[in-house]
Amino acid sequence: MTSEQEYNTLTVNISHKVAHIVLNRPDSLNSMNVDFWHEFPRVIDDINNKSAARAIVISSTGKHFSAGMDLAVFSANGPNDNIELGRKHDQLRRLVLKLQDCFSVLEKARMPVLVAIQGGCIGGAVDMVTAADCRYCTQDAFFSIEETKLGMTADVGTLQRLPKLISIGLVKELAYTGRRMPAEEAKQAGLVNQVYDDQQTMLTAVLAIAAEIAARSPLAVTGCKEMINYARDHSVQDSLQYMSVWQSGMFQPQNDMMEIFTAKAQNRAPEFAELTPIDPIKIF
Amino acid sequence: MTSEQEYNTLTVNISHKVAHIVLNRPDSLNSMNVDFWHEFPRVIDDINNKSAARAIVISSTGKHFSAGMDLAVFSANGPNDNIELGRKHDQLRRLVLKLQDCFSVLEKARMPVLVAIQGGCIGGAVDMVTAADCRYCTQDAFFSIEETKLGMTADVGTLQRLPKLISIGLVKELAYTGRRMPAEEAKQAGLVNQVYDDQQTMLTAVLAIAAEIAARSPLAVTGCKEMINYARDHSVQDSLQYMSVWQSGMFQPQNDMMEIFTAKAQNRAPEFAELTPIDPIKIF
Amino acid sequence: MTSEQEYNTLTVNISHKVAHIVLNRPDSLNSMNVDFWHEFPRVIDDINNKSAARAIVISSTGKHFSAGMDLAVFSANGPNDNIELGRKHDQLRRLVLKLQDCFSVLEKARMPVLVAIQGGCIGGAVDMVTAADCRYCTQDAFFSIEETKLGMTADVGTLQRLPKLISIGLVKELAYTGRRMPAEEAKQAGLVNQVYDDQQTMLTAVLAIAAEIAARSPLAVTGCKEMINYARDHSVQDSLQYMSVWQSGMFQPQNDMMEIFTAKAQNRAPEFAELTPIDPIKIF
Amino acid sequence: MTSEQEYNTLTVNISHKVAHIVLNRPDSLNSMNVDFWHEFPRVIDDINNKSAARAIVISSTGKHFSAGMDLAVFSANGPNDNIELGRKHDQLRRLVLKLQDCFSVLEKARMPVLVAIQGGCIGGAVDMVTAADCRYCTQDAFFSIEETKLGMTADVGTLQRLPKLISIGLVKELAYTGRRMPAEEAKQAGLVNQVYDDQQTMLTAVLAIAAEIAARSPLAVTGCKEMINYARDHSVQDSLQYMSVWQSGMFQPQNDMMEIFTAKAQNRAPEFAELTPIDPIKIF
Amino acid sequence: MTSEQEYNTLTVNISHKVAHIVLNRPDSLNSMNVDFWHEFPRVIDDINNKSAARAIVISSTGKHFSAGMDLAVFSANGPNDNIELGRKHDQLRRLVLKLQDCFSVLEKARMPVLVAIQGGCIGGAVDMVTAADCRYCTQDAFFSIEETKLGMTADVGTLQRLPKLISIGLVKELAYTGRRMPAEEAKQAGLVNQVYDDQQTMLTAVLAIAAEIAARSPLAVTGCKEMINYARDHSVQDSLQYMSVWQSGMFQPQNDMMEIFTAKAQNRAPEFAELTPIDPIKIF
Amino acid sequence: MTSEQEYNTLTVNISHKVAHIVLNRPDSLNSMNVDFWHEFPRVIDDINNKSAARAIVISSTGKHFSAGMDLAVFSANGPNDNIELGRKHDQLRRLVLKLQDCFSVLEKARMPVLVAIQGGCIGGAVDMVTAADCRYCTQDAFFSIEETKLGMTADVGTLQRLPKLISIGLVKELAYTGRRMPAEEAKQAGLVNQVYDDQQTMLTAVLAIAAEIAARSPLAVTGCKEMINYARDHSVQDSLQYMSVWQSGMFQPQNDMMEIFTAKAQNRAPEFAELTPIDPIKIF
Repeated sequence: MTSEQEYNTLTVNISHKVAHIVLNRPDSLNSMNVDFWHEFPRVIDDINNKSAARAIVISSTGKHFSAGMDLAVFSANGPNDNIELGRKHDQLRRLVLKLQDCFSVLEKARMPVLVAIQGGCIGGAVDMVTAADCRYCTQDAFFSIEETKLGMTADVGTLQRLPKLISIGLVKELAYTGRRMPAEEAKQAGLVNQVYDDQQTMLTAVLAIAAEIAARSPLAVTGCKEMINYARDHSVQDSLQYMSVWQSGMFQPQNDMMEIFTAKAQNRAPEFAELTPIDPIKIF
Repeated sequence: MTSEQEYNTLTVNISHKVAHIVLNRPDSLNSMNVDFWHEFPRVIDDINNKSAARAIVISSTGKHFSAGMDLAVFSANGPNDNIELGRKHDQLRRLVLKLQDCFSVLEKARMPVLVAIQGGCIGGAVDMVTAADCRYCTQDAFFSIEETKLGMTADVGTLQRLPKLISIGLVKELAYTGRRMPAEEAKQAGLVNQVYDDQQTMLTAVLAIAAEIAARSPLAVTGCKEMINYARDHSVQDSLQYMSVWQSGMFQPQNDMMEIFTAKAQNRAPEFAELTPIDPIKIF
Repeated sequence: MTSEQEYNTLTVNISHKVAHIVLNRPDSLNSMNVDFWHEFPRVIDDINNKSAARAIVISSTGKHFSAGMDLAVFSANGPNDNIELGRKHDQLRRLVLKLQDCFSVLEKARMPVLVAIQGGCIGGAVDMVTAADCRYCTQDAFFSIEETKLGMTADVGTLQRLPKLISIGLVKELAYTGRRMPAEEAKQAGLVNQVYDDQQTMLTAVLAIAAEIAARSPLAVTGCKEMINYARDHSVQDSLQYMSVWQSGMFQPQNDMMEIFTAKAQNRAPEFAELTPIDPIKIF
Repeated sequence: MTSEQEYNTLTVNISHKVAHIVLNRPDSLNSMNVDFWHEFPRVIDDINNKSAARAIVISSTGKHFSAGMDLAVFSANGPNDNIELGRKHDQLRRLVLKLQDCFSVLEKARMPVLVAIQGGCIGGAVDMVTAADCRYCTQDAFFSIEETKLGMTADVGTLQRLPKLISIGLVKELAYTGRRMPAEEAKQAGLVNQVYDDQQTMLTAVLAIAAEIAARSPLAVTGCKEMINYARDHSVQDSLQYMSVWQSGMFQPQNDMMEIFTAKAQNRAPEFAELTPIDPIKIF
Repeated sequence: MTSEQEYNTLTVNISHKVAHIVLNRPDSLNSMNVDFWHEFPRVIDDINNKSAARAIVISSTGKHFSAGMDLAVFSANGPNDNIELGRKHDQLRRLVLKLQDCFSVLEKARMPVLVAIQGGCIGGAVDMVTAADCRYCTQDAFFSIEETKLGMTADVGTLQRLPKLISIGLVKELAYTGRRMPAEEAKQAGLVNQVYDDQQTMLTAVLAIAAEIAARSPLAVTGCKEMINYARDHSVQDSLQYMSVWQSGMFQPQNDMMEIFTAKAQNRAPEFAELTPIDPIKIF
Repeated sequence: MTSEQEYNTLTVNISHKVAHIVLNRPDSLNSMNVDFWHEFPRVIDDINNKSAARAIVISSTGKHFSAGMDLAVFSANGPNDNIELGRKHDQLRRLVLKLQDCFSVLEKARMPVLVAIQGGCIGGAVDMVTAADCRYCTQDAFFSIEETKLGMTADVGTLQRLPKLISIGLVKELAYTGRRMPAEEAKQAGLVNQVYDDQQTMLTAVLAIAAEIAARSPLAVTGCKEMINYARDHSVQDSLQYMSVWQSGMFQPQNDMMEIFTAKAQNRAPEFAELTPIDPIKIF
C-alpha cells in the first residue's frame, strides 16, 4: 500500500509506521455518504493487509468530526419498495449487517486504532468511534446519539458497544433523548481517555501515543488488542484459557524480549519484525 | 388505565404521556411492605399495557427515598416452619424469584423508567433503582446495601445489576461493609446520571427529561431500551446480529422519520403513533 | 493455621479475624521470584482452609508495592529448549494456566481480599491486584502494564480482569503503551476505591475496612463475593436465578439476623459462627 | 384445583397425583384455536400451582394428536392492518413471545410432562411436544414441521428446541421440506422415547411411567427437571456449579431418604411431603 | 452468475433453482489443492449472491468423495520458515481462520446445502460436510478424521461441528483413532440423514429433496436455516427471543401464505419471489 | 509413577503406554467408599502428571461395574449437624463441588479415558463414566440414575453431562424414574460406542482401541480432547477461534508429521515424543 492512494472522502498518510487517516469533507460536515461507506473499510483493510503500519490514527477536518450518516444514502439507496415486504426486510437486515461490518473492521485490524475527535461526533460517527480502540477529544467536542431524534434506533454499533464502555444508565439517557454529551462528561464517563485544549494539541498528543505504540513489539501489541476484545465478550475463566493458548505459540522471549535487552545494552531503540500478512502468492 | 386508580403505597399520575409514580408512605420511610410488593409490579404492568405513557418517573416523599424491605414482611410472611426443610427451601427459592420479578418489570416495560432519589436509598430500594433505566439524586442522597448489616446477602437484584453499572471493586466494598455511598461518589461511579441541589429541582429536571423522551418516537425509544439491555448481557457480535434483525422489521423511515421532516417543514412538533398493546379482544 | 508460619517472600499475621499478608522483599522491589509463586497461593489457601480469618489485607514494604515478575524466573525456569517445539508450547500453555491459578485463588477464597498499594504496581503485580476484591492506594502509587515494554503480552490475568473493572478504552491505552497510570486517574477510572496520603494512613484505613467486614456475618459476606463474581461473568437473568438458589439454602434469618437483633437489644456486638471448612477427618 | 373444571378444548383429570390432560376436539383435528391458546397455559399453571399432581400426561383424541395452529386464529386475530407498519411488527413480535410462553409453561412447571402422541403431530403440535419433558407415540404417529409448506418459518419453539433433541442435520431436512417423519425414525432420532402398537397400549404405558414418577420424592424429581433443563442451555462447568448450590439447600437426607429406608423396613410405600406452593395468603 | 463459469476443481450447474456442484478431480481423489481452496468459497459466494438458486447440492466423482487436504498445500504454501517464530505462529493462526472461512460460507449461504457422499470422506472432507446443512451417503461410504493419523489435530471445523451433530463419545473415538466410520453407523449416529444403495440412486434422491426445498418459499426456508443454526449455539431462551424479532419483520402472511392458498385454489404450483441480494448499484 | 503403587479400592497397571485401572472391590459391588473418593482422583492425577501413559482404560471386577456411592459415606461423613444451618449448607455445597472434582479430573487429564462397563453401572458410577471420554459395555450391562429412587437428585455430574451425550427426552425419563437402561438402548442412544458379548471380549477390544490411541502422536490426541470438550460448551464460532490459536503453537508438521512419513518410508512404527509435564524442579 502506498501513501498516495486516492480516496474521495478521506486522505491517508503512512509515516514512521503510523497510518493517519483524515476525513476530508469538512464542507459537508464529514457526513458519511455512499463513497465513505465504500472507502472506509477498504482503507482499513489495506492498511491492515498491505502496510507496515503498527497504529492507526483517525482524525477529521473542519469544525466537526462528523455529522454521521448522510441521509441522502437512505433516499437514494434504501431497499427497493417494489419488492415483497418480507424480502425487503430481509434485504434491510443484510444491509445493516454490511454497514456494521464497515466499522467492525476497526476491531479486526491487527493494530490499535486511535480516534482524535473535534467538535460534533454525531450519529454514525459515534458508531465509528466506539468501534475504535481509544478515543481522545478536544474541549469543544460533543457526542450525540442523534438517531432517536430522527425517529429511528441507532443500528451500526453504538447501542452494542457503548454499554461496554460507559455506565449503562448514562448510555440510556443519551440514547433516549439524543442530547449532546460534552467532552468533560465523556472523559469522566470513560468514553474518551483525554481531553485537549484544541485540535492541534490533540493531534500532536495522539500521534505521539501512536508513535509510542509503533515503537513496541507489534506482536505483543496485537496480542493485547485480541485479549482485551476477547475479555469484553467472555467470562474471566474463558478469557484466561484463551490467553494461555495464545501465549503458548506467540511468546518467544528469545526474540522480541531479548532484542529489547540487547538494544538497551547497546543504547539503541529495539527493532522488531513486522507481523507478516499471509503471503498472497501462497494459499491466500 | 385511568390516573385516579387507588393504591395504598404509592400514587400514580399520567400526564402528557409521562407516568409519575410517587411512593407515599413517608411516615414509614416508604419501606416495602406486603402491599407494596403487590402494587408495584401491578402499577408498572398497567402503565405498560393500558396507558399511552411513553416514560415513567418514580420519585418518593419525605426525608428518604425508601428504607427498603419492611422487615415485618419476613416475620409475618416467610416460608412456613412446619414444612419439610427441603420443601421450605424450594419455597423460599420461588419466593425470591417472585420478589425479583417485581423489579424486573422495570426492565421489561416498553418505556424508559427514570428514578429520582432523595435521602436514603437503602436495601431493597437499591434493588429497585438498579432495575430502572436511569437514576438521578439529590445532594443529600445516599445508597446502602444494608442487607449485609442485617446478616443476609441481598437477593432482589442489587448484586446482579450493580456490577453492570459501576466498578466491581466498589460494588464489593459497598456490599461487604454496607456503608453509605454519598451522592457525589454515586455520580462519579456512574450509578446516577446527575446530582441536584434539592428534590424540587431534581423533580423538575427529571420530569423534563421524561418529557423530552415522551416527545420522541416511542418505537425508536423502545428499540434503544431493548438493544442496550441486550448488549449488557451478550457479546458485541450477538448484539449486532440481534440489532440487524430488529431493524429489519421496525425501521420504516417513510413513517416516523418522514413525519419528523414534515413537522419541521411545517414548524410544528412531530406526532408519533403509540405502540399498540396486543388487543385483548383478539388472541391475548 | 498459626500466625507464625515461615515464608521467604511474605509475612502473614492473623489477628481479630483479619489476615494481614505483607510482601517483604523490599530490597528486590518485592519482585515475584520462584519462592513467591510457591508461597503466595499456599498462604491464601491456608488462610482460606485453616484459619478463622474473615478478611485478608495484602500490603507491601519499601518504596514500591511490587515490580512484578522476577525475570530470573524465565531464564532459570522456562520451558525446556531441548524438547520438541509443539510439546514445549503445550508445556508453556500449562505453565501459564498454573501462574494464573496462583492469583485466581484470591477470587476463590471465601473471604474478601483487600489490597493496599504504595508506589509502583507493575506487571505481574497488576495481575495480582486485579484478582483481589478491592484496591486502595497511596497518592504516589502508579500502575503499569509493563509487559508490552518487555516485548510480551501480559498473561497472568490483567488483560482478562481489568476490562471488567475500568473502561476498555483506557485499558487498551495502558496495555498498548505500558505507561504509568497515577493514583488519581486510577481512582477516577474505578480501579481503586480510595487514595490515601501515605502508606500509614492507608494501612490504618484499609485494616479498619477489613475489621468492619470481619464484624459482619461471614456467610452473608461470602454470599456477596460469590454473587458479584458470578454477575461479572453471566447475564443478569442467569445471575438472578443463581441468587435464588443460593439464598434458598443459605438464608436462615432465625440465626444470623436474629443474633443481630438480639445483640442490639442487649447492647453488644453480634457474634456469628464461622464458615466451617470441610472437616478433613471426614471425606476430604 | 378441582378435577371437574370446565374447558372447551381439553379435559383434565387428576388422580393418584397424576394430572391427565386430553385434547378433546377430534372433529377439528384438535387444532389450536383461540380458546386453546387461552386454556392450555391456564390448565398447566393451575395444575402447577393449585394441585398435588406430581406428573402431567398430555394425550389426545381421534385419529390425530393435533393439526397445529387453527389458521382462523391468524385471519380473525392477527395484528391490525390499520396501524403503522413498525408498530404492527412490534405487536407481532410480542404476540409471538406470548404464543411461545404458552408452551414454555411446560418447562417451568415443577413436575415432569409426558406426551402421548397418536397420528399426526403437525406444526404447532410439534412446538408443544418439544417443550414437554418426554415424548411417546404410536406406530402410526408422524411429525411434520408443516409451517414451511404454508410459506412461513415455524415460530413457537420447534426450531429452538428440536435441535437440542435430535441431530441438527435431520432437523434441517424436516424444516426445509416439511416432510412427515414416521414414528420409528422419530424413535431412532431420539425425539420419542418409545413407540407403542396402538393408543390404548401407549396410554397404559405412559400413565404407568407417570405413576412411577409420582411415587418418587417430588423434590428429587423437580431437581432433576431443573438441572437437565439448565444443562441443556449452559456449559458443564456452569451446570456443576448450579447443581452444588441447589443441593446445598434441597438435599436433606434425614427426611426423604430416611423415609425410604424406613418404609422399606416397614414393607410399605414411602410417603413424601408435597412441594408447597407459595402460600397466596402470605406475600404472593 | 451463469452456469458455464470455469473452475479447475469442480463444475457447477444451476437448473430449476438448484445449484449442483460436482468435485471433478477423481484421479486425485478430489483432494483439496490450492485451486480448490480458492474456488470453493468463490463458487458458494457466487451462487449465494448472484444466482436464483434456492438449494445447493454438492456431490463428487470417482470412487471417493474426497481424500481431504492435498498435502502439497502444506509443503508448498505453509508459513514461511525464515520469519520470527512468534510471527510465523500468528501467520498460521490467520491461515487456519482463512481455511475455516472457506467452509463456513456453507453456513452463511442463504439457502440449504445438501451433500451427497460416496466412498471415502476423509480429513478435510469431513470438515466440509459437517459445515453443510444435510448429509446423505451411499452404502460404501465411510468417514475418517484422518488428521490424527497424520500427527496433527484436525483444524478446519470437524472438531467444532461434529460434536453438535453426533454423540461426543463417538466423536472422540473417531478423532483419537482416525478409524473409518461406515455408512450405517453414520446413519444411526445422526451424521447422515439417509443411506442409499449406490451413487446414482443417491443423486436422484438428493436432487429430489433439493427440488422440494426449491419449491418452498425461499424466505421461509432461509428463516429455518438461520434459526436452527442460531439454536445450535444459543440457549433456548435466547433463541426464542431471536425468533420473535425475526418473525416480526419476515412474516407477511398476506404474501407467501396467501399465494399458497390461491395457487391451491387454482390448482397450480405457488410462485414465490426470490430473496433479493443487496443491489450492487446501490450502497453495496 | 510406578505401576506397583498400592491402593485399597483399585489397581493400576501401566504397560505399553496404556494405564489400566481396575476397580477391585467386587464383594462390595465396587461401591464408592471413602477410600475410593481419595484414591480415584489421585490415581488419575498421578497417571496424568507422572507417567508416560497416553491412554487410560477403566474397568471393573465382579458381576457389576459399580453400585455407586457407598451410603456409609453419608452417614459417617456428612456435614455436621451441630453447626448453624446456613453454614452446614455452605459446607455441603463445597463438599458437592469436591465430589464433582473427583470425576472432572477425567476431563482434565491430557489423555483419553475409556471405560469398559459390565453389569450394573449405578448412581455415582454413571456420574463417573459420563465424565470419561468413551464408554463401552457388555450385553448384560445396564445404567441407572438410581438417586431419584433414594429420594435425592443426582449431584456428581450425571445430570450435567448426560444431556450432552444422549437425547434430553431420554435423560429425563431415566432421571425421573430411575429405571435401568439396557446395553442396546444405551448404544442406540449414543451413551456407549460399542456393546460386546462378554467382559473378556470387551476388555480385549477396548485395550486394543487404547493401544491404537497410544500409537498416535500424544500432542495430536490431546488437541482433539481439548477441542471436543471445548466445542461441547461453546458456540461453533468461539470453538473455531480457539482452534486457530491452539494450532498456531501446537502444529509443527516438521516434527510429528515428518516422523510419520519417515517411519512409513523406513517401514517402521513412528515414534513420538511424550508430552512433558511441567518440571517440578522448576517453577512448579
